[in-house]
Amino acid sequence: MVALGGGHGLFASLSALRRVTTDVTGVVTVADDGGSSGRLRRELGVLPPGDLRMALAALCGDDEWGHTWSEVVQHRFRSEGELHGHAVGNLLIVALWELLGDAVAGLDWVGQLLGAHGRVLPMSAIPLDIEAEVAGVDPDVPDEVSTLRGQVACASTRGRVRSISLVPPAPPACPQAVKAVREADWVVLGPGSWFTSVLPHLQVPELADAILGTRARRLVALNLSPQSGETDGFAAHTYLDVLAAHAPDLRVDSVLADPMILEGERERHQLERAARQMGGRLELAELAAESASPVHDHDRFAQAFEHIFRAH
Amino acid sequence: MVALGGGHGLFASLSALRRVTTDVTGVVTVADDGGSSGRLRRELGVLPPGDLRMALAALCGDDEWGHTWSEVVQHRFRSEGELHGHAVGNLLIVALWELLGDAVAGLDWVGQLLGAHGRVLPMSAIPLDIEAEVAGVDPDVPDEVSTLRGQVACASTRGRVRSISLVPPAPPACPQAVKAVREADWVVLGPGSWFTSVLPHLQVPELADAILGTRARRLVALNLSPQSGETDGFAAHTYLDVLAAHAPDLRVDSVLADPMILEGERERHQLERAARQMGGRLELAELAAESASPVHDHDRFAQAFEHIFRAH
Repeated sequence: MVALGGGHGLFASLSALRRVTTDVTGVVTVADDGGSSGRLRRELGVLPPGDLRMALAALCGDDEWGHTWSEVVQHRFRSEGELHGHAVGNLLIVALWELLGDAVAGLDWVGQLLGAHGRVLPMSAIPLDIEAEVAGVDPDVPDEVSTLRGQVACASTRGRVRSISLVPPAPPACPQAVKAVREADWVVLGPGSWFTSVLPHLQVPELADAILGTRARRLVALNLSPQSGETDGFAAHTYLDVLAAHAPDLRVDSVLADPMILEGERERHQLERAARQMGGRLELAELAAESASPVHDHDRFAQAFEHIFRAH
Repeated sequence: MVALGGGHGLFASLSALRRVTTDVTGVVTVADDGGSSGRLRRELGVLPPGDLRMALAALCGDDEWGHTWSEVVQHRFRSEGELHGHAVGNLLIVALWELLGDAVAGLDWVGQLLGAHGRVLPMSAIPLDIEAEVAGVDPDVPDEVSTLRGQVACASTRGRVRSISLVPPAPPACPQAVKAVREADWVVLGPGSWFTSVLPHLQVPELADAILGTRARRLVALNLSPQSGETDGFAAHTYLDVLAAHAPDLRVDSVLADPMILEGERERHQLERAARQMGGRLELAELAAESASPVHDHDRFAQAFEHIFRAH
């Protein structure tokens, strides 16, 4: 199984997938420019480590060792000083990169430390930026399209993101990630920040080729709620429309959604049709945890994955 | 075996002792206020972790795992920014302290990570400062005695350090360190910054009681060269004179020195006499590595330890 994404969305898919398979690989967007990761990229010229760290933590071993080191790597310093906000695992990953000079080897060492159930890879071994075409950045001119640069700017815009591209364009893929996608039984896209975590993988040519060309089945997992900024006002089918617009040749086998995102029968039919147009079938399952904000329940998400994997 | 000290001196004694025993405990001064450690204590209110980290690295496992994680914890960030100079292991130790709320447990986790051949403990679980009585801070008034505060100030003074004390005075000892000293076969003091790394242990009452009262044999390992500031102008026997002045009841079994520190027969006799006055015997052995600056060769140091341990 290979899961593509970034941030909390990939954390959720990996946390679920590890429950249904012993062989899972997370492939992570490396375009983050905010928070601890953004500071480390700017200060040390490295890949943004945060989403990689979070993905590794999702795969940590089940024993006291795995849990403790997972807590350590996820721990953030809180102070009035220079370390405030840095996650310890980000610093550890960067140190391994500096020592070993190899992004994948450094991540594999942290994976070993955590007793990780699988592997975490960057989609590219060079730091990337996201550029977005955004309509209505100025609310007074709603149809004017501007170009925004940077993951934070794109993810938090008040405008409507139309499309994204990478800077530098057509970056080299991480070869191990390409290989994992080609050899997988299933490739899972999403959930996650749609434009800034899910779509970027399709802008890395060799990785996009692998996603389109793999004999693996493809599953798209939709988000539980629109993300303020990026996907405000999205109907359920809009996720698929945007995906198809960025990768017209992409075929999918399964589209997984929580019925909570559908406002009535009409939206369900629209989503079914959009899935069908990409060659796939809509699977509805309750995925959300019982909490105030909509987040994936790892067990429910895992059950839904298992149900789909078995049916194919 | 228990080795008491701090910094590079303790790193040397632990690096040697691990070669002659499987059961070694390092007990570390916690009064550092410089560098990465000083910044962490000021920013986060924790024990200075640097000397503890270095001691743990000295005990790291012999395999690829131990060596790699040892390099990681010893790695320092170099940049123009906020992380510059921080050692990764310092950040890791501090994170474990924040998570576990227990200085010893946090160090034991890092010891496990490194596959450490032994254990590293702080002499006290609270951060300490060193205060020194120093003569001739102002070179124009060589006999005037001033009080300096802080490890860095005391270790780098141009004056002559006469004595040190701890702030707060009579701090609580780390119980595990007291127990280790009481149960040891050998207790090794030094080498290291004499006033700021070796003598402080004798200013922690319960630890001093343990050092004086243990049935273990006691070995004092002298430095290879005077330390600019702290021990400028020391004759070999001055190390013992200062030790006796700070702990008049201390008896030692063995005093280990490199003959390179003795300028002629007279100094040898003086050192022999000083050792005898403390109840011990002088052992001379070539300990220095073949390098420009005098540092301990771990194998030679280990052979000297082994020779002494066997003879008693």
